[in-house]
Amino acid sequence: MPTTAEPAPPTPFTADDYRARMARAARSAAEAGLSGLLVAPGPDLVHLTGYQPVTTERLTVLVLVEGQDPVLVVPALEAPDAGRAPAAPALKLRDWTDGKDPYAVTAALLEGRGRFGISDNAWAMHLLGMQRELPGTTYTALSDALPMLRAVKDAHELARLEAAGAAADEAYREILQVRFSGRKESEIAADLAALLLRFGHAQVDFTIVGSGPNGANPHHEAGDRVIAEGDMVVLDFGGLRHGYGSDTTRTVHVGEPSAEEQRVHDVVRAAQQAGFEAVRPGAACQDVDRAARAVIDDAGYGAYFIHRTGHGIGVTTHEPPYMIEGEERPLVPGMCFSVEPGIYLPGRFGVRIEDIVTVTESGGRRLNNTPHDMAIVR
Amino acid sequence: MPTTAEPAPPTPFTADDYRARMARAARSAAEAGLSGLLVAPGPDLVHLTGYQPVTTERLTVLVLVEGQDPVLVVPALEAPDAGRAPAAPALKLRDWTDGKDPYAVTAALLEGRGRFGISDNAWAMHLLGMQRELPGTTYTALSDALPMLRAVKDAHELARLEAAGAAADEAYREILQVRFSGRKESEIAADLAALLLRFGHAQVDFTIVGSGPNGANPHHEAGDRVIAEGDMVVLDFGGLRHGYGSDTTRTVHVGEPSAEEQRVHDVVRAAQQAGFEAVRPGAACQDVDRAARAVIDDAGYGAYFIHRTGHGIGVTTHEPPYMIEGEERPLVPGMCFSVEPGIYLPGRFGVRIEDIVTVTESGGRRLNNTPHDMAIVR
Repeated sequence: MPTTAEPAPPTPFTADDYRARMARAARSAAEAGLSGLLVAPGPDLVHLTGYQPVTTERLTVLVLVEGQDPVLVVPALEAPDAGRAPAAPALKLRDWTDGKDPYAVTAALLEGRGRFGISDNAWAMHLLGMQRELPGTTYTALSDALPMLRAVKDAHELARLEAAGAAADEAYREILQVRFSGRKESEIAADLAALLLRFGHAQVDFTIVGSGPNGANPHHEAGDRVIAEGDMVVLDFGGLRHGYGSDTTRTVHVGEPSAEEQRVHDVVRAAQQAGFEAVRPGAACQDVDRAARAVIDDAGYGAYFIHRTGHGIGVTTHEPPYMIEGEERPLVPGMCFSVEPGIYLPGRFGVRIEDIVTVTESGGRRLNNTPHDMAIVR
Repeated sequence: MPTTAEPAPPTPFTADDYRARMARAARSAAEAGLSGLLVAPGPDLVHLTGYQPVTTERLTVLVLVEGQDPVLVVPALEAPDAGRAPAAPALKLRDWTDGKDPYAVTAALLEGRGRFGISDNAWAMHLLGMQRELPGTTYTALSDALPMLRAVKDAHELARLEAAGAAADEAYREILQVRFSGRKESEIAADLAALLLRFGHAQVDFTIVGSGPNGANPHHEAGDRVIAEGDMVVLDFGGLRHGYGSDTTRTVHVGEPSAEEQRVHDVVRAAQQAGFEAVRPGAACQDVDRAARAVIDDAGYGAYFIHRTGHGIGVTTHEPPYMIEGEERPLVPGMCFSVEPGIYLPGRFGVRIEDIVTVTESGGRRLNNTPHDMAIVR
């Protein structure tokens, strides 16, 4: 396939971007009654510093305490790398050498006691080390204490999510040109993966191709089933571009749909629109779920919408906020998440339509912009 | 490049293999005074069950208690996958559904109290969940409590490590045929990666190409430096084949070496041989380090051998046992590890020679078998 012209990558995040994020996180921690945060390598650390260390068995941890400079504890061997991290000018580095106790080094930053939030994916080994070193401290997982830590995106993050969405849209437009009939789901999935890479993704995370009855399983990925004339086909694909995620779903049809297939597709399309229209600052996350679900319930398909309506997206493709009944936290401008209702008729077919949506002061704005009508493919 | 005939993959591990490993782990835990083990997704779980779940934020944990059947706690959504794991016939599955408390499900298996070993890389979120659910329990990291859990390989694991070593050897033989002079380190690294894949690796973990002064940094990977006539070049590469690791180093020279380069290479070669000859059941790990180091010390280069002599290898490319001063645990037949002394002359050049070695009843046996002499490349 020819490669297309690639727009320049977005402006790199600056140390000031990271400084602002770290300050906001420390403030949120204080407001939640925490003494501070221990941030482990992984999505939290990428979001707050841009730093992705190679190893995780040696302790690397960002210590955030409101009113203090952020400190990144790093193995001495990796200090040069950490010193080149985008957030380095906004950080103090505190290195430790093999044979020294990294928990004692970290403990000296915590003032001996209090309750700290810790990244969900911090290693148990490191948490045990801190508990042993500082028996006066207690810990809570960040997903419990500050679930919305990464949920509100700044302008530069939003630009990346837009770029990822635009690339996924390009991939969708191109996939409509390929032959579906007579080919395996896995072949279409490979085409989608190649298209995501062609349009600038560095990583493909999933390429769901659910044809015919396979479309009725929302967790189906792509298999050996040969797609045939008359099949409904769910296409749900995404990955990372410039470090931020894409995730979009369209449901296409090989040849002309039946009246029932068209009706189900129309219902899902209306549900997606209703969910989208429920997006506005101050609405509860669950309101988005309720709005989409009401359309499907009213059409009599409520029993066949078997998952939540959406999930947040950022440096990972699934993260808070979740659009689910019971999630009463409010939508805030800058949040980005999927709106993806579906109807799944066991043994027959499925339909799902998904856009990434961001919250603006005046309501929702879509980061996916391909048509929602049921495309007819060969 | 043409592809070569690939031998059939090794016999799959059976449920009996995994049953034996789990029983041995539970027994080791009891001998170490632990009530049992909590094994998280990652290398420990792969070694003990062959199971690699997709997600890690939902609790998946293997509970091993001596005298009880092993139980794998899994999210209900993933129970079908877990049921197809190679170890499934040797396991009980205990699933939990979204909205239920997975820690309560796990706690019911622990009988309420005691001290448990937990995988180093278990998520802090999950450890906090267990500590909250069962305040009477305490935990210790597996690398502290049972560092040799995965260190002794069974015959089927050894066969995989041999296959990985043989493939790395093939890659080395082929790389000697390419042109070095006038090309960037990164190009040689790409060649090495392609060769590892060509010879059956599923994953390339590292391709260090350290030419001239870059060879004096053991952590140098491969960069833009253009290799020239007269350069010493350290080649250290490996990855995973059939799930088990390779890791070998040879140091080559572009054109004829100087007398000093030849002398340093001879010293490292003799040190590697001495380390290898120190391998026998019952010797301490540190004896291997001491034997190799003595040769380098005696030659007057002791200050330039700046790392341990070796590390274990298995489902990861770095794991216990470590061949390092202070590691007094004995070598046991079935252990597999690197013997890789080096001399690093800052600003000038480096030399390292590395084989993977396994412990047999009668001494060490190499899993890398290419010549140790300094190959002359173009």
